[in-house]
Amino acid sequence: MQSVEPKHQKSCLTMALAQYTSAVRNMEHTVMLPSLLRDVTLDEESAMADAKDLYECYLMLKSIRNTVESGLMPLDDWKTKSLHFTKETQNSEITDPEAIFYLHLKGLYSVLNNLTKKSQSLTKRYKDIIGLAN
Amino acid sequence: MQSVEPKHQKSCLTMALAQYTSAVRNMEHTVMLPSLLRDVTLDEESAMADAKDLYECYLMLKSIRNTVESGLMPLDDWKTKSLHFTKETQNSEITDPEAIFYLHLKGLYSVLNNLTKKSQSLTKRYKDIIGLAN
Repeated sequence: MQSVEPKHQKSCLTMALAQYTSAVRNMEHTVMLPSLLRDVTLDEESAMADAKDLYECYLMLKSIRNTVESGLMPLDDWKTKSLHFTKETQNSEITDPEAIFYLHLKGLYSVLNNLTKKSQSLTKRYKDIIGLAN
Repeated sequence: MQSVEPKHQKSCLTMALAQYTSAVRNMEHTVMLPSLLRDVTLDEESAMADAKDLYECYLMLKSIRNTVESGLMPLDDWKTKSLHFTKETQNSEITDPEAIFYLHLKGLYSVLNNLTKKSQSLTKRYKDIIGLAN
């Protein structure tokens, strides 16, 4: 008997956005002294690839939450950061707008999930630092 | 006197999604005989790079609208289509989640705007074919 494979994958972007803002709200509520996060990293396994400390990570998560909530995109930092990547996108063989749509939808969904987890780990790490039970 | 540059760019994703679904709804309402779009292309300048005819384009725009409205992502077609692109993304030097977030947000916003215009052009072209005044 053949197994029935699901034709769709649940990936509601609205849900991912809501979960992210909720995680950041909880982080803000918990982290009363963000400066305690300076020079602190997560455990090695989950440490950020670009070696940001948790204070920088905290600011980044808040900044992205502002973008998510306001719908306003800052024009400065990200433009430089994503320049190389954008160049690759332009040079890509993919011109089909459908493929590009799904790529960005999937990408946004995936990065939001990662950022939600990061926010939750940061909150947990802060509680460890101040000796609060998780 | 220095000009005051805006710090933000209005880019509300929700608005782009709503405009897209509205354009496709209008397209569906107008195009009563989609088969008339077979082997028809837009004018050369705005013709799709992948040389789809307007009938295929019509189906694609509807399919994407379903994804936008339901939040369910089909697992089949787009996976293959965006494979090469995804590989490039993985090989990219960019590991900063903030840059990746803004890249996909900007990308999704941009492709939605293009698809909205495509839907409007298709509707206009259909009206030309059946001799309806625009």
